Amino acid sequence: MRVGQAWRRTIELAADGWAVEVIDQTALPARLTTVRLATVADAARAIVTMTVRGAPLIGVTAAYGMAFAMRADPDDDSLHAAATSLVATRPTAVNLHWAVDRMRSRLVSLPPGERERAAYAEAATMAEEDVDVCRAIARHGVPLLEQRWRDRGARGVLNVLTHCNAGWLAAVDWGTALAPVYQAHENGLPVHVWVDETRPRNQGLLTAWELGAHGVPFTVIADNAGGHLMQRGQVDLCLVGTDRTTRNGDVANKIGTYLKALAAFDSGVPFYVAAPSSSIDFGMARGDLIPIEERSAAEFGYDGDVPVANPAFDVTPARLITGLVTERGLTEASPAGLVRLFPERCS
Amino acid sequence: MRVGQAWRRTIELAADGWAVEVIDQTALPARLTTVRLATVADAARAIVTMTVRGAPLIGVTAAYGMAFAMRADPDDDSLHAAATSLVATRPTAVNLHWAVDRMRSRLVSLPPGERERAAYAEAATMAEEDVDVCRAIARHGVPLLEQRWRDRGARGVLNVLTHCNAGWLAAVDWGTALAPVYQAHENGLPVHVWVDETRPRNQGLLTAWELGAHGVPFTVIADNAGGHLMQRGQVDLCLVGTDRTTRNGDVANKIGTYLKALAAFDSGVPFYVAAPSSSIDFGMARGDLIPIEERSAAEFGYDGDVPVANPAFDVTPARLITGLVTERGLTEASPAGLVRLFPERCS
Repeated sequence: MRVGQAWRRTIELAADGWAVEVIDQTALPARLTTVRLATVADAARAIVTMTVRGAPLIGVTAAYGMAFAMRADPDDDSLHAAATSLVATRPTAVNLHWAVDRMRSRLVSLPPGERERAAYAEAATMAEEDVDVCRAIARHGVPLLEQRWRDRGARGVLNVLTHCNAGWLAAVDWGTALAPVYQAHENGLPVHVWVDETRPRNQGLLTAWELGAHGVPFTVIADNAGGHLMQRGQVDLCLVGTDRTTRNGDVANKIGTYLKALAAFDSGVPFYVAAPSSSIDFGMARGDLIPIEERSAAEFGYDGDVPVANPAFDVTPARLITGLVTERGLTEASPAGLVRLFPERCS
Repeated sequence: MRVGQAWRRTIELAADGWAVEVIDQTALPARLTTVRLATVADAARAIVTMTVRGAPLIGVTAAYGMAFAMRADPDDDSLHAAATSLVATRPTAVNLHWAVDRMRSRLVSLPPGERERAAYAEAATMAEEDVDVCRAIARHGVPLLEQRWRDRGARGVLNVLTHCNAGWLAAVDWGTALAPVYQAHENGLPVHVWVDETRPRNQGLLTAWELGAHGVPFTVIADNAGGHLMQRGQVDLCLVGTDRTTRNGDVANKIGTYLKALAAFDSGVPFYVAAPSSSIDFGMARGDLIPIEERSAAEFGYDGDVPVANPAFDVTPARLITGLVTERGLTEASPAGLVRLFPERCS
């Protein structure tokens, strides 16, 4: 997306053609810098430390991690060790599993001598597919914003609330939840975004940064404020991402998403989840089965030794979700809704 | 309450017998220091800057502000000017109005020469009454904790979730929501408190500080985490304070309280509000009529010029509240419930 006069992606092949440069998201919003990743250990570390973050982006980063492993040593042991180390980095987002499994399936049947080239090609394909998926989510999401805009009289601004960062920084480009917002803005719809701060890591400041860089109006709010704004009619629609959506339509996303879904339901505000199919776990029946990552107390940034608990995700039950926006279109958050769009994955 | 080996109150008469010393809550949890207040302007500034905060404490501080004004100039103009300036400091908490109106009623019928002495006496009485009210809330709240403890098998710890700070720092001593927690802890009940961080001002760190100083086990969590903990059965009971409760039982409290009440309702967790009668506004019909204070963007502590909205309170509808714990006992959050306990104020 646009940053000043330039267009950027979060992850790009380096000039040498085999390492990758990723935007360092731990340095944003203060500084826009990149980090070079060249080994599977680099890729795993970048995911653990959240140099790269966001379900789609960690999937693509892991795919390149597999390619780095094949360049270093293309044998079976190296392949399986790389897959194991990458999958272990973060437990909740299922894209990571999806990406690593896809790379492993592609590579394991090839002779070792062909694996490096095939791995880079597959990782590049996955990055391009991610952009296409996000564009498709934009295409399917824009009519929801336009309809809501008409429903409220086609006046003033359309207020969208989002939680965490599901923008282009969370993907390769465009983003998931923010893709329809960017597209609507490009189309001339007067969109304004309420940006949840998203403690303890403040990923809302990443959302603020990317919206600001692209020229989309926004206001940052404390995570506590969204319910009040919804009660007072100041939110027209909620739109968030997902780290894992289960077969029944339950959605794991950044901690606090569930509270916003409860408030939206209580105030009759539509609550949509942008869910690329790579984040849908057809093998898991319900959201309460999803492993929830517990992260470090250091993320709170406190001085001294304050006892802290830091679950990084929560599960929003399907009953609170108005719809899922996937690359194949809009569907209800239910087994039937998912089967209808993805029959080949539900057999 | 206890701080190390000493027992402290938030506001105490200075050695000279006419100024007051208040704990500077903007310096906590880093440093325990006091600030001397000696004029009505000092008192108003302490309330605006949140050197003192918490509905009961700002009421008592305003009462002393009236006394300072009477010491400086006991005539009617001074009396009314002091009342006006103090009431203007913060719009949402009704204790402030209650305290100033009580002081004005007490003083206005006296000859100016008697007002200073009467004002100090009345302010001191209000401080003592506040302690008594908090002790009564403790007495009526403890059985709720004990019953919940028995209901869950009288094993492990009883997990109480609270939002913001409604402890002794928010009152003169004991606190409102935390008073039953302190008393239960003193009685030997194994209580553990989930402390919401309470962005943007992090009043949860005040709660953490006072619980820690008194030896009550606690864990700080992001405001986003409470819903997840309730879904997973890790919260036995929620207990919060209130800045204004209307005649129908709606509760204005620190922004984000409503989200926790929604989550508690969704998971079947009892949600109680500690409501001293000084915070009940019998003259206001419903919570949506309560003025909501918008505070400064500076409270977020961001570098640079990030657009921010900062509503400081929200309204929890009575339907989400299990009960109100007042100094006269427990009652339902409804017109009938309030009339039953406070018939003299509902005529």
